[in-house]
Amino acid sequence: MLKGAVVIGQSGGPTAAINATLAGVIKGALNDSTGSVTKIYGMKNGIEGFLREDLIDLSEYFAEDAEKKLNVLAATPAAALGSCRKKLPDPASDKEFFDNLIELFKKYDVRYFFYIGGNDSMDTVAKLSKYLETSDYEMRAVGVPKTIDNDLQATDHTPGYGSAAKYIAATVQEIIRDCAVYTIPAVTIVEIMGRDAGWLTAAAALPRIISGVSPDLVYLPEVDFDTEKFLEKVKEALAKHPNVVVAVSEGVKDKDGHYVGEGTQSGVADAFGHKYLSGTGKALELLVKEKIGCKVRSVELNISQRCAAHLRSGADISESLAVGQAAVENAVNGVSACMMAMVRSEEGYEITYEAKAISGIANKVKTVPTEYICDDGSNVTDECLRYILPMIQGEAENYFEMGLPVHLIF
Amino acid sequence: MLKGAVVIGQSGGPTAAINATLAGVIKGALNDSTGSVTKIYGMKNGIEGFLREDLIDLSEYFAEDAEKKLNVLAATPAAALGSCRKKLPDPASDKEFFDNLIELFKKYDVRYFFYIGGNDSMDTVAKLSKYLETSDYEMRAVGVPKTIDNDLQATDHTPGYGSAAKYIAATVQEIIRDCAVYTIPAVTIVEIMGRDAGWLTAAAALPRIISGVSPDLVYLPEVDFDTEKFLEKVKEALAKHPNVVVAVSEGVKDKDGHYVGEGTQSGVADAFGHKYLSGTGKALELLVKEKIGCKVRSVELNISQRCAAHLRSGADISESLAVGQAAVENAVNGVSACMMAMVRSEEGYEITYEAKAISGIANKVKTVPTEYICDDGSNVTDECLRYILPMIQGEAENYFEMGLPVHLIF
Repeated sequence: MLKGAVVIGQSGGPTAAINATLAGVIKGALNDSTGSVTKIYGMKNGIEGFLREDLIDLSEYFAEDAEKKLNVLAATPAAALGSCRKKLPDPASDKEFFDNLIELFKKYDVRYFFYIGGNDSMDTVAKLSKYLETSDYEMRAVGVPKTIDNDLQATDHTPGYGSAAKYIAATVQEIIRDCAVYTIPAVTIVEIMGRDAGWLTAAAALPRIISGVSPDLVYLPEVDFDTEKFLEKVKEALAKHPNVVVAVSEGVKDKDGHYVGEGTQSGVADAFGHKYLSGTGKALELLVKEKIGCKVRSVELNISQRCAAHLRSGADISESLAVGQAAVENAVNGVSACMMAMVRSEEGYEITYEAKAISGIANKVKTVPTEYICDDGSNVTDECLRYILPMIQGEAENYFEMGLPVHLIF
Repeated sequence: MLKGAVVIGQSGGPTAAINATLAGVIKGALNDSTGSVTKIYGMKNGIEGFLREDLIDLSEYFAEDAEKKLNVLAATPAAALGSCRKKLPDPASDKEFFDNLIELFKKYDVRYFFYIGGNDSMDTVAKLSKYLETSDYEMRAVGVPKTIDNDLQATDHTPGYGSAAKYIAATVQEIIRDCAVYTIPAVTIVEIMGRDAGWLTAAAALPRIISGVSPDLVYLPEVDFDTEKFLEKVKEALAKHPNVVVAVSEGVKDKDGHYVGEGTQSGVADAFGHKYLSGTGKALELLVKEKIGCKVRSVELNISQRCAAHLRSGADISESLAVGQAAVENAVNGVSACMMAMVRSEEGYEITYEAKAISGIANKVKTVPTEYICDDGSNVTDECLRYILPMIQGEAENYFEMGLPVHLIF
């Protein structure tokens, strides 16, 4: 048995479910029956905060009213511990950085490191794990997936995606109702997050297999965007009915790899070299205005896609909690250098949680497969929607006080 | 007793509550105990549809399962009957138009005309009422208020505002949580609807008196926007904490009356001469970027403010239903040429429904009074928030099927 403190961090972009996973890890650590967990720390702002020893004593915070507090935490959007986008150096090239980090782990007797995040966070777990192989300090590092993008390898889907998908599908369904009230021909372009993978944009089409209502066209970044074909499709749709709705990923690119929204993007890149995009919807709005000339507007769903906790998926929140608990259960039983993956049963929708080797998971994007995209690239298939459908089932409970949802703030 | 058919129309922009009012009018007509109502018609796309005799037989539609259908209707966003923005001619100058209209009313034996809408729709009721004074055709016309803008005269507030305010307050609270995850200084500008009145933008400050969390700055169109003062305020806020959130109305103007978003607006005007605005948030984003140089982004809450039925206020939906029912009860008892107003008790929050003369109500905007705005114009007072607070209480029921809210489509 490895006895010691647990430290938990959150990293990368906020989601409506990442705090449910945090609640799951805390719950797992509080309920640890092996007696391995001596203390629970939270890193403020991920590994960055840990490096400046900015820690929250979660054992103390949850000593009283744990259940109630964990329920509110699981209903709170964004990262309650704060986040960061720090990229760790390569363990082979910066031994000093990791020696320093290990000294800090020793200082707080940290033996269990849980990092909740997406691709970039798994990179952190992978590098730390790689270094730990060469160190005589015994410590276990486990990554817990989180990303609305659903673009992580090795897991059927990611916690956070289901809630984002539910919000997008419900909002697009409402926008379609909004658009339907007038009779003059109009095109509404809804821009959806997802730089490299079209999973979020695909969710906009979900109402099709639920209520029969859906956007006319759905464009994913997995398909080269062709302006001429797009305009043809919009004209075809306008010929059928006056209220045309288009869902488009912020990340659509032409065949030469130029982002459609490039002209209007800020050009700023983050620490991982990602370019911030904005304006794909706006660019297509201007295009339709110029080339077709009808009434047109663009709607950017924006950050509500990742923080609209008031409409979380029940399935997603249950799984987000469970994957956090499973991470602790696995770690105290010897698992390390892993990411917790969600495995879907071959029949039906039973989810099991399995630890998978972290090496080879990070920095790889799982995109929407070709068979999930219609032949002409202007929509997704029913098979794609049937894959997503179980993830948006059920409504997670909200705690309202005086008319607004209650959030937990450390 | 005036016996005949009821015709109901919806007009102007969609809201999350206008169908609850439609359900209220239908319920009132179905349950009419005076025996006045012989038939219930819905106009497709308001008066425009009526003129081409595009009617829905609502008596037939609701002959079965009325209660269940009315509940789903009340949970459906936007205008289920469709809407229009037709401006009627002046009765004095275009008698022919009205003679033609009266012939149509006669054809369908319409004796009760209910029009659900905002300022422009009340203009329609006022003109029709004015003409009816000169006609020997006996008919009663009653306007039922609806607008997320809360800018109608003669009523304490408008159905639809409470749900929009709740959505805005909840979403801004989520955005504040989202912004709080990183430590680098950043400004987030949230652009909120409301061309001429700041009621919607004021709602962004509601969390302040509920959870203690709120935007740093709140700018209403009632106050001349001063760029220099704004930048000073943003710098002051950044000196206190890194995550500055600004709520700004799409309609803010400088002291010379120029819209802040003017440079980026489309310039298109609707039938009432309103200019479509967009880009106030974007304009301020570029300003902060240039003059302060920190990380900055803008978020446009966009049309979800008026169609996010999944987060409707319980109080608003109850009132929206009740005002529709009250309209029918008043009309069958002799009321005409009126708008139904909501009157708030002097103490507490008891709402009564009173018919007020339509003349003098239309085309006048009720703006946020000076005493509701802080002295330096950069926020709203607690008194303003206490006025809004009761309107966002409670959560209206949603009917989910396979993970998404169910909508009624005629």
